[in-house]
Amino acid sequence: MAFLQSRGCSSASKPQVAFLGPLGSFSHEAAAAAFNSQATLLPQSSFQDAFAALQSNKSDFAVIPLENSSNGAVVQTLDLLADRRELYGDITVCGEYYLPVHHCLLVKKDPSHENSPRPPEDISTDPRYKSITKLYTHPQAWGQCEIFLQKHFKGVERQDVSSTSKAAEIVLHETDHHSAAIANKFAAEYHNLDVLAQNIEDNPENTTRFLILRNRKSERTAACGQRTSADDRPESKTKRKTLISFMIDHNSPGALADALVIFKRYGMNLTTINSRPGGARPWQYIFFVECQGLYDGHGDQTVDKIMVDLRKVTEACRHLGSWNDMVGLSQ
Amino acid sequence: MAFLQSRGCSSASKPQVAFLGPLGSFSHEAAAAAFNSQATLLPQSSFQDAFAALQSNKSDFAVIPLENSSNGAVVQTLDLLADRRELYGDITVCGEYYLPVHHCLLVKKDPSHENSPRPPEDISTDPRYKSITKLYTHPQAWGQCEIFLQKHFKGVERQDVSSTSKAAEIVLHETDHHSAAIANKFAAEYHNLDVLAQNIEDNPENTTRFLILRNRKSERTAACGQRTSADDRPESKTKRKTLISFMIDHNSPGALADALVIFKRYGMNLTTINSRPGGARPWQYIFFVECQGLYDGHGDQTVDKIMVDLRKVTEACRHLGSWNDMVGLSQ
Repeated sequence: MAFLQSRGCSSASKPQVAFLGPLGSFSHEAAAAAFNSQATLLPQSSFQDAFAALQSNKSDFAVIPLENSSNGAVVQTLDLLADRRELYGDITVCGEYYLPVHHCLLVKKDPSHENSPRPPEDISTDPRYKSITKLYTHPQAWGQCEIFLQKHFKGVERQDVSSTSKAAEIVLHETDHHSAAIANKFAAEYHNLDVLAQNIEDNPENTTRFLILRNRKSERTAACGQRTSADDRPESKTKRKTLISFMIDHNSPGALADALVIFKRYGMNLTTINSRPGGARPWQYIFFVECQGLYDGHGDQTVDKIMVDLRKVTEACRHLGSWNDMVGLSQ
Repeated sequence: MAFLQSRGCSSASKPQVAFLGPLGSFSHEAAAAAFNSQATLLPQSSFQDAFAALQSNKSDFAVIPLENSSNGAVVQTLDLLADRRELYGDITVCGEYYLPVHHCLLVKKDPSHENSPRPPEDISTDPRYKSITKLYTHPQAWGQCEIFLQKHFKGVERQDVSSTSKAAEIVLHETDHHSAAIANKFAAEYHNLDVLAQNIEDNPENTTRFLILRNRKSERTAACGQRTSADDRPESKTKRKTLISFMIDHNSPGALADALVIFKRYGMNLTTINSRPGGARPWQYIFFVECQGLYDGHGDQTVDKIMVDLRKVTEACRHLGSWNDMVGLSQ
């Protein structure tokens, strides 16, 4: 379900959404899907630029990857959320979007070949398959498509590029028909390439979770991501999630356990914990704790109470946002 | 203090120590320093190869980076410790080593120049400085030496290479004297290069923590890393550390808090928590918890009791090792 539909934001005028480019990237796909193509999408050249655009109200939202089900947390995102230089104090999480990571093998459209709208049943029967002598993709994608590559492209030259979308762009501009890119279907549509094989990833469950961020001072987007009266109805299956960050004073033994026990005291289940260097001193960490009501949704008052107690045992404690759990609902 | 001296392993015949190469790398420096040059060092082409060498008893120890004070956890190491395919069941942590990350600017020795054993006080007075038109290093090192590079090498061509040691090797084999490498002093000694500037890193506190691993079935190394009677003396300031990993069943809400509270019950302070994807299902995590006695050192019996309780609320729980805390003692 798209973020805008589910969160009652449809009355807002067309929102501006920042994401990590280039166009055709997985972040572009997630932003387009989460906002159901009803937004102006603003590609940024870094995660940092996306945060800066949101903090300065140049965009209404940002769609940023937080973690991949196979590769784990995106540390650049955690480091921006850690906000060690206090640049992004107004940024808050208001939603999430789960994007399945499906890879395709993309080739340039061949005028001499009848381009079918669908990839061939068996790639080895397609004449374009045999002419491929070079493959392009982001380094991470090779590892995600190993079985397919071993079966069909053993020994074929591989060229690393900075993104899967960039790989698609390179293939589009090649003058011959000897190269192919591994990228998503979205990039094929965007760059007008042919899909020679789809779902070539080893793990069909591989999924990236994106956070949807807004500026907490923006009135335009104030309603988005809020708990609604529908969420409170007994039949509602909506679960809320909350993300909180804090640091621990190393001279205060037991403080991390004391902090974590607070969540249980208020009926909250800890669903993930991540840590990153705190930045001020070596071996001091900032922790990111995500939690969910143990028994049902949780109101903002519960989070307020947790924050009061956390501030007694932690440093630089910050409520990074609460939003509706979308696991299993994004598509 | 070197690992061998501090841990009463001196009676063992010259041990074999696996580490990530190439020769001259920071891992090489850590392995040489931890074993006080009293070991046969075995460079490996990947962390995985180092784990495999240890599991199959082809090496006695492995020295592997766990975390950097600025960049955080080394996820490849955590993923090998997670041991999702059960390949490394005999590997255990028996020590740690803290290596300060100091970068130098290295150039090829110039026969026409009087090579001083020390770098010049002011790099700009050295004639070799002006002839440098190309710099080589690992991508991460550029960011760690930004202030120095901005001051002295603004606009100079930069070439990424796979390791700082590889950068030193390239400079050694250049035919002219126009290139320089950013690498550690150890690489300068190993490749017989001149140090034109030292300690050029922005953050002098930047430190990498290495784990020293052994095979728990090896009798040769059985004494290494064990708690000794000296550790139990009242005047001993030795603190023990323990690393434990476990997974949480997502259908068991509250289990993570239940697991973490066990450490406190037995007087243990949680010093770090890291999480990685569990591997079996999306959004199931494996947690790595490091702990330390709250009041004093902790005996192996305390860890045994924690493990018994943890197994009741977690899955695939594993005691990855206990060793003496070396923070502030490694150099």
